[in-house]
Amino acid sequence: MAKEKKHPRPKAEPPKGFRDYFGAEVTERQHMLEKIAEVYRLHGFDPLETSAVETVEALGKFLPDVDRPNEGVFAFEEDDTWLALRYDLTAPLARVAAQYRNDLPFPYRRYAMGPVWRNEKPGPGRFRQFYQCDADTVGAPSVAADAEICGMLADTLEAVGIPRGDYIVRVNNRKVLNGVLEVAGLAGEDKDAERGIVLRAIDKLDRLGEAGVRALLGKGREDESGDFTKGAGLGDAQADVIMGFMDAKRADGPATVARLRELVTGSAIGLDGVTELETIASLLAAQGYGPDRIVIDPSVVRGLGYYTGPVFEAELTFEILDEKGRPRQFGSVAGGGRYDDLVKRFTGQEVPATGVSIGVDRLLAALRAKGRLTGETQGPVIVTVMDRDRMADYQAMAATLRQAGIRAEVYLGNPKNFGNQLKYADKRRSPVAVIQGGDEAARGVVQLKDLILGAKLAEEATLEEWKSQPAQIEVPLTDLVEETRKLLDRHQ
Amino acid sequence: MAKEKKHPRPKAEPPKGFRDYFGAEVTERQHMLEKIAEVYRLHGFDPLETSAVETVEALGKFLPDVDRPNEGVFAFEEDDTWLALRYDLTAPLARVAAQYRNDLPFPYRRYAMGPVWRNEKPGPGRFRQFYQCDADTVGAPSVAADAEICGMLADTLEAVGIPRGDYIVRVNNRKVLNGVLEVAGLAGEDKDAERGIVLRAIDKLDRLGEAGVRALLGKGREDESGDFTKGAGLGDAQADVIMGFMDAKRADGPATVARLRELVTGSAIGLDGVTELETIASLLAAQGYGPDRIVIDPSVVRGLGYYTGPVFEAELTFEILDEKGRPRQFGSVAGGGRYDDLVKRFTGQEVPATGVSIGVDRLLAALRAKGRLTGETQGPVIVTVMDRDRMADYQAMAATLRQAGIRAEVYLGNPKNFGNQLKYADKRRSPVAVIQGGDEAARGVVQLKDLILGAKLAEEATLEEWKSQPAQIEVPLTDLVEETRKLLDRHQ
Repeated sequence: MAKEKKHPRPKAEPPKGFRDYFGAEVTERQHMLEKIAEVYRLHGFDPLETSAVETVEALGKFLPDVDRPNEGVFAFEEDDTWLALRYDLTAPLARVAAQYRNDLPFPYRRYAMGPVWRNEKPGPGRFRQFYQCDADTVGAPSVAADAEICGMLADTLEAVGIPRGDYIVRVNNRKVLNGVLEVAGLAGEDKDAERGIVLRAIDKLDRLGEAGVRALLGKGREDESGDFTKGAGLGDAQADVIMGFMDAKRADGPATVARLRELVTGSAIGLDGVTELETIASLLAAQGYGPDRIVIDPSVVRGLGYYTGPVFEAELTFEILDEKGRPRQFGSVAGGGRYDDLVKRFTGQEVPATGVSIGVDRLLAALRAKGRLTGETQGPVIVTVMDRDRMADYQAMAATLRQAGIRAEVYLGNPKNFGNQLKYADKRRSPVAVIQGGDEAARGVVQLKDLILGAKLAEEATLEEWKSQPAQIEVPLTDLVEETRKLLDRHQ
Repeated sequence: MAKEKKHPRPKAEPPKGFRDYFGAEVTERQHMLEKIAEVYRLHGFDPLETSAVETVEALGKFLPDVDRPNEGVFAFEEDDTWLALRYDLTAPLARVAAQYRNDLPFPYRRYAMGPVWRNEKPGPGRFRQFYQCDADTVGAPSVAADAEICGMLADTLEAVGIPRGDYIVRVNNRKVLNGVLEVAGLAGEDKDAERGIVLRAIDKLDRLGEAGVRALLGKGREDESGDFTKGAGLGDAQADVIMGFMDAKRADGPATVARLRELVTGSAIGLDGVTELETIASLLAAQGYGPDRIVIDPSVVRGLGYYTGPVFEAELTFEILDEKGRPRQFGSVAGGGRYDDLVKRFTGQEVPATGVSIGVDRLLAALRAKGRLTGETQGPVIVTVMDRDRMADYQAMAATLRQAGIRAEVYLGNPKNFGNQLKYADKRRSPVAVIQGGDEAARGVVQLKDLILGAKLAEEATLEEWKSQPAQIEVPLTDLVEETRKLLDRHQ
């Protein structure tokens, strides 16, 4: 008992909010990452891989939710330095751009892919580790860089299997929002807190609706659980300006731009932002990205505090069924924008930067929800073991198949019960089993069992079909590769 | 000043022992991981990806260096649970095999790849995050599984570009070592500590030589820095048995096996181990893996405490130059073995398992040292900007090139100084620059500058060569793709 207590059995489970990925889940993600990287690379972006761990100092205070500065990360202290797992791929890029500023080519176009970690409350479909795939251009002040990223984002979505019409890239500009805030009387350093609340309120329009946002702009809002969120304390006239901004989208780009220009009248930064939006729209139009793919949409603000100019978001527009079977829009799968101050934190010098982050796991979920990824893969050919002492022969058969490029393995469990070997082959989704007992060995032949056909026949075949399509054939050992390939080709 | 103090500039550097990977460093590693996965997959292994974070409880005490149980990892506490970054891919596999024991097909063949983290003192070329690529078979008690892994390891090394003759897979068996320890009077639970010291001493033979190991088997050893390592306290006769074991390698496998059988006479487990080695050797021989690729070598013990049967190690046999320019053997790049007790920790039931881990970063370093990886990649075609107002035209040219599959981008820095644009193209290793000023635009042409030829001519050309091979040509804009491709093909 004392010994049991000293070494209690550990629980066989991952930490809360983490999960494991098996088989096709892994290869489908890898495949998607490669497709995305290919588009990024084609646009001139070079790969960068930083480590999972950064100093908390380098990560800075730019956390996804500005309500909780310096929370939201997994942090630990080593040698008197606080380290943390990266929560995105942007903060490490800012560090790299500063560290290697004398060696890198500028503008520096880089892409990065890999997991990021968020110390947030896990929920259904919400994990603490997930993949991002980012592309950023550091050192390009012109909005041509932003336009390029938006166009590339559209190309990328199509490359991974989201057809045109099933997505929309929406573009806005923080400067326009700042102009609107100025017009609403919320300029000035002393209004920092109010601006933060307004920003987050706008970002929640989808979820809370107009009334909810209006409450947050005013006195505040009590949610269903009874929790109260403090509002920005704006008067009705001020709130009207903000609400008007969110509602500024018109039938086409030029009309929206015209409406925005009205709204920011009198604000220099606001007008600057509107002009930038116009430039982006015309650059994209010249390359053939029409409003079926990219639109100006004032309701996009992005939650992050560090954006300084254009912001954009890609949304999937098709409906899926939620956990309760209700249809809903899939929503955002990527976003980004211009952040001209992130590198400055390190160097003190202005370094313009813009980029996009694709939520790879969400994108995979979308393709699965639409049935465009099956999550299934074919298993290997299984060489069964009829005679334990002839393991070397079975291994040689598997090796022969592999040399011909056919995925194959020898059954390595306890071979006593042959039924278990076929059950294993079934569980592995194996297409073919190779069988050779002593009798077959003496005659120099093997049995090939077509497991896919066998399963199909067992389910639905008539007697005639059984006879005409033998699911098991005997072939000379010397024809092992050729005959196996024939069976595999049957089910291509 | 007060404000400066509140927000001091963060240092732009990664934490100690971590580093960044750029461009070809990333793609070459990715390429190697894919090659390895392809071989693993061909052998019937399925991918598994666990998260970077595990509970410390699940990781257990099986740390790489048994001197420091429960150290060596990056750990942090969340919600009253201690979590840590995985230090290898084996411990998470053991957890998964236990957790999903009713759902997975057994034997479960899985491969995994990704970074692991070690909280160890960093040194030159020694980082705290590095890549492993593992394959393991869980639930296969037969040494046929070990033999398969050894053969697959040889195949893998050849697949990533290590030719036969440049590597050797060395195989041993812990049971033989245990037999030797028994013969030397070191059996029994009360001898745990001594056995640990002996194990680690043998593992250091390469580094410390025979005298150093003998010192560790006896009273202990003082290293160059004056640090003293306590020895196992064996008498001379006992030490002779151990040293005889390390020296048991003979001219060929059968002779080595015969010598080992002598050494373990009287030990049942030792004899069992020798028989297993014989079986592995004959299975491998039947598949054509001769002693030029895989040999029995009693000096291989592997540092990890958890191995219970066959152990193996792949070593590169060619020489490279060390930091001081002296030739040395490159050494170990992969290792593994049988660990039948790791899953049992969770379930209480015996689950046999065996596998291999490839040190991907070391393997990459080896290929680079041999000049088999260049670390260089060609940059994109650069469309230069002669006229800032015609950005849309330049973007359209880049888009046209990309649609034809040619990597291309528009220069997005400040276009004022044309020399800077060409310097940028040079830094990006760009093969071709596209140039179109107002005059060319009016005539519907572009200039294509062959940057590779240009650089070569500038270095070494005679006047005649300059004339006969123009590094810059004028072509119709409509021929942009075709003519660019011609220039790219010149340098394939």
